[in-house]
Amino acid sequence: MKYKLILEYFGANFHGWQKQKNLRTVQGVLEETLSKIYNKNIFVQGASRTDSGVHAYGQVATFLPPNFSLKPEKLKKALNSLLPWDIKVKKIEMVPISFNPVKDSKAKYYIYKIYNMDYLSPFYYKRAYLVKRTINIFHFEKILKVFIGKKDFAAFCDKEIKEKKDTVRMLFDIFVDKSEENIIDIHFLGESFLRYQIRRIVGTALACYFNKISLNDILKAFQTKETLPYSVPGEGLYLMKVFYKDLDQK
Amino acid sequence: MKYKLILEYFGANFHGWQKQKNLRTVQGVLEETLSKIYNKNIFVQGASRTDSGVHAYGQVATFLPPNFSLKPEKLKKALNSLLPWDIKVKKIEMVPISFNPVKDSKAKYYIYKIYNMDYLSPFYYKRAYLVKRTINIFHFEKILKVFIGKKDFAAFCDKEIKEKKDTVRMLFDIFVDKSEENIIDIHFLGESFLRYQIRRIVGTALACYFNKISLNDILKAFQTKETLPYSVPGEGLYLMKVFYKDLDQK
Repeated sequence: MKYKLILEYFGANFHGWQKQKNLRTVQGVLEETLSKIYNKNIFVQGASRTDSGVHAYGQVATFLPPNFSLKPEKLKKALNSLLPWDIKVKKIEMVPISFNPVKDSKAKYYIYKIYNMDYLSPFYYKRAYLVKRTINIFHFEKILKVFIGKKDFAAFCDKEIKEKKDTVRMLFDIFVDKSEENIIDIHFLGESFLRYQIRRIVGTALACYFNKISLNDILKAFQTKETLPYSVPGEGLYLMKVFYKDLDQK
Repeated sequence: MKYKLILEYFGANFHGWQKQKNLRTVQGVLEETLSKIYNKNIFVQGASRTDSGVHAYGQVATFLPPNFSLKPEKLKKALNSLLPWDIKVKKIEMVPISFNPVKDSKAKYYIYKIYNMDYLSPFYYKRAYLVKRTINIFHFEKILKVFIGKKDFAAFCDKEIKEKKDTVRMLFDIFVDKSEENIIDIHFLGESFLRYQIRRIVGTALACYFNKISLNDILKAFQTKETLPYSVPGEGLYLMKVFYKDLDQK
């Protein structure tokens, strides 16, 4: 067996998930804290490599402890008392050693938050992306629907990744609603996502909504695979949940 | 005429509302910014002297500009672009010069937020007070109802104020609900409040809920006016709205 953690973190002060020398990352802080608890180097594997600034309500990570003297509830307490304020453990459970948080994931659910007002509320600083011009969510959603389906997202991801990787991804659904009066939530449900994919989709959809490009330009970019230059900041993005069962079994 | 501002601020990095030498305060930052805009010293009067750490969604303040060359919408834009991220202007309107934000106030509405879980979510750091033991809001509300009415709150306010001021206050209503699964919101509606009054009421109600004191101890404190030693941090407190019309005219 090994441990599976469900994590919540406020991403603004992290250089993303992945460990990097001399930079504060979620993986780095977690491994450091676990290594203190077990007095041994611990390696943590995360389900999703969230970028700089990106938040999580439901990141998943696993690690193999040197022993099982600390039961999940005790370990959760120990971790939460040692971790800094911006990362906390929601839940710990035991899973088979064969469980792989990346490969076994069936779907991921993200929200991108837009603050739609003439100023950014102090309560949403680094928590949402300010768009001052009014957005009608029904019209906006129509544009976003173009991105649903199994498609080659080469034009809508990190340029480096575009050259190295297969860029075909299955995007199950995108829908838009309002969690508060001035907050537009864009929900993304996909099998997996490419680096910058959601931020580039949102940026491109906004460019289209405000008539900088046409819907046709988007369709064309899918064919030509030529990167469109629109993106939005990581601070509006939240990893909500990683699914390990097929969605219809949920 | 003069200007009436409605302000939103995240209180964690302010030493409260009131201007103090060498300390960052809301009044201080506002006056400094307005003085830059008008190139003249500006004095701002606030409706409520919120304490260190206390947040506001609807603080009210007034000031007399040296001239009216900047119309409300323009001034709001200028202010919001110059003010730091943790204080923003929601609305500006013209009011008669006789309008006094303190004396003309008919009621104030505050919320105290409790995060009721075994750990504090990173998204509520400095935004709510963590209580780990489960609170049943129906039972908790029953205790809080004891504080409603026109009473002498001498036992439930700042000790210094207790000696100087009339401590009788009218508390119209207190009720409790949940805005999210783990968040308990305690709503306070009163004519006006004494310094620390809400924090001491919440702290005392919690002490009673967890059987450190009895309901009778609270009733006795009202009579003896002897300070009870319970309080909760300012970071859970939000000034929601200041009312200038009678509530039944709303």
